[in-house]
Amino acid sequence: MSTPPRRTQVGIIGAGPAGLFLAHLLHRQGIKSVILETRTREEVEGTIRAGVLEQWTVDLMQDLGLGERMRREGHFHRGITLRFAGESHHLDFEDLTGGKRVTVYPQHEVLKDLVAARLADGGELHFGVRDVGLHDLTTDRPRLTYTTRDGEPQVLHCDFIAGVDGSQGLSRQSIEGRTEYGHLYPFGWLGILVEAPPSHHELIYARHERGFALLSTRSPEIQRLYIQCGPTDDVAEYPDERIWSELHRRLETVDGWTLTEGRIFQKGVIGMRSFVCDRMQHGRLFIAGDAAHIVPPTGAKGLNLAVADAVYLSRGLDCFYRTGRQDGLDRYTETCLRRIWKAERFSWYMTTLLHTNPAESPFEHRIRLADLDYVVHSRAAATALAENYVGLPLD
Amino acid sequence: MSTPPRRTQVGIIGAGPAGLFLAHLLHRQGIKSVILETRTREEVEGTIRAGVLEQWTVDLMQDLGLGERMRREGHFHRGITLRFAGESHHLDFEDLTGGKRVTVYPQHEVLKDLVAARLADGGELHFGVRDVGLHDLTTDRPRLTYTTRDGEPQVLHCDFIAGVDGSQGLSRQSIEGRTEYGHLYPFGWLGILVEAPPSHHELIYARHERGFALLSTRSPEIQRLYIQCGPTDDVAEYPDERIWSELHRRLETVDGWTLTEGRIFQKGVIGMRSFVCDRMQHGRLFIAGDAAHIVPPTGAKGLNLAVADAVYLSRGLDCFYRTGRQDGLDRYTETCLRRIWKAERFSWYMTTLLHTNPAESPFEHRIRLADLDYVVHSRAAATALAENYVGLPLD
Repeated sequence: MSTPPRRTQVGIIGAGPAGLFLAHLLHRQGIKSVILETRTREEVEGTIRAGVLEQWTVDLMQDLGLGERMRREGHFHRGITLRFAGESHHLDFEDLTGGKRVTVYPQHEVLKDLVAARLADGGELHFGVRDVGLHDLTTDRPRLTYTTRDGEPQVLHCDFIAGVDGSQGLSRQSIEGRTEYGHLYPFGWLGILVEAPPSHHELIYARHERGFALLSTRSPEIQRLYIQCGPTDDVAEYPDERIWSELHRRLETVDGWTLTEGRIFQKGVIGMRSFVCDRMQHGRLFIAGDAAHIVPPTGAKGLNLAVADAVYLSRGLDCFYRTGRQDGLDRYTETCLRRIWKAERFSWYMTTLLHTNPAESPFEHRIRLADLDYVVHSRAAATALAENYVGLPLD
Repeated sequence: MSTPPRRTQVGIIGAGPAGLFLAHLLHRQGIKSVILETRTREEVEGTIRAGVLEQWTVDLMQDLGLGERMRREGHFHRGITLRFAGESHHLDFEDLTGGKRVTVYPQHEVLKDLVAARLADGGELHFGVRDVGLHDLTTDRPRLTYTTRDGEPQVLHCDFIAGVDGSQGLSRQSIEGRTEYGHLYPFGWLGILVEAPPSHHELIYARHERGFALLSTRSPEIQRLYIQCGPTDDVAEYPDERIWSELHRRLETVDGWTLTEGRIFQKGVIGMRSFVCDRMQHGRLFIAGDAAHIVPPTGAKGLNLAVADAVYLSRGLDCFYRTGRQDGLDRYTETCLRRIWKAERFSWYMTTLLHTNPAESPFEHRIRLADLDYVVHSRAAATALAENYVGLPLD
């Protein structure tokens, strides 16, 4: 026996950052939405992910009333340190950008706050659904079909559908006439989680002849560190001693700073790729976040880009429901992509700047070092890096 | 019968920008030099070359009393125009850099002024010499041997030798333990000289899907234009109509500006490469200018880099003759290369930013367009481009 069809204004496929921010933004505008998520709540909230929030993302969370725990538990960083050629150089973003900084607050913590607030608002959020299907996208009554967690087939009639089901999701496949742009990097990151106090109060990005390294933090007790590795390396090739040896060699410089070791309780290898889907809409379907674009983690743009898409989509929908005008929605792809390509450029630039690449010539290697030398000694170049890192303004 | 050996303080191999500036700088410091040049004076002064002088190069010419004709005949540009995606964007260097600009004054005109002043100063400058040989470089009495224009063998005893004989010269071959870095670009420039009034009061750099184009000027009557072509294209493949057609398509945008045509009286194809020689000294031999480094013409750094080397070398020599201390000379390579690599980076960046490259992926193509979009809309990024274009300060 099938449950009777249901209806909402915006059907949202996915409870990641793009989907949850979109639901909250729409709620504030009085627009109803239903979120369908194939994973369980525990899976969504338990997938440990990095999180460096741009200034405007933090401001948005505060505006939406979602910032209380972030204010308490987040770490506010006024800059980063770049290490290369045996020296370290601090870039003071707050000084360079006129007061902006970044907030280190992991993505899964953001999601916990957004899920809790969604449920407290009485908003619909269905975990553990299966067999999601998209239908009638080019009509003004698109439908979503799915099977509920309890095994019931369900139909959801919508005005619009937001496909925010990640890079492996099916929403993107429904965008007709799309062009996909991709770039694979010939290296990956070996990431570890460590029981230790922070070795430094901010992030340290290092370019070393042995490869990139990044010192990051999760909490006062848990540290997150990365070293460049082969894109398909096995963690078994990296016993703890090898990892610490590489981290010491890549991160430490002549200035006497030392890395604090601790128990490594998680290891994993992540690949690095860039991806952009141009177009991001088809009929009444709009895709956002990882469904539409991927950046390598260098520069920490992924989460913020997803939120920006959600903001642009909510603006277009708000305009439609208030005025009946569809031009904001018609320009959705164009509006998003202009900012996305800039973030893709920045992520690609930071990645190529900081990693050693066996495919690059000795000339290109020296060009990267000259670029780093230029960036840390030119206020204009440092400001350009800083304004991208803290987040370009939303148009 | 051989002429008796002669002596000078600094033997200079080459009467290009590096050699002539060095001779003038040394003369001002009371240090004697002799310039040997294999070409005739007519060849040196008659080789038509572009010339975009950085602000400090202009200031130096004035300081040396060599700037009178440049002030009268040079064109002072306060910026450039970047064209891409059907739009043009002006970068106002004078505004962005706090008053700096560039001067368009062709290299052969600079050389004419420097040669004339050298001869007026009674400085030695021997054209048309042959068979130059470098000897005893690691002693404190290095020698140059050569055959004079009149066929006489000659020996010149020196304290120091400056090898400024260009990229094909032999000086670089005497630098032991050197590492050479090179990069070949898979495209070239087809350059034309045209009898026409200027189409625009400043340079226009265009990135177009059909390739790069550059609008430049020589004089109120002669214009210099370039289009990207294959690195080994034959000018015969480019009848005038094809060139004008490409220039119109690549340079014109929707804003109504039009290119003025005229009689094309010279055509040539130039390849594009980057090159750096690390080290730039061996014993008492110091190399400078094109002998040590080559940049692609995009961004117009070549002449200015040669002059910077001459300044650094003159400082080291001045310190040696005044105090007997050799540490400035010992650091010559390091001092020069730090600035050279930054200029190499900028030239490489401008070249990759503005040219279409069949070896680049569609993703990289979009990254370049995003970079241009970013540069023209970010004051920090525009300032970074501007400060490199008008010339980074000499340390």
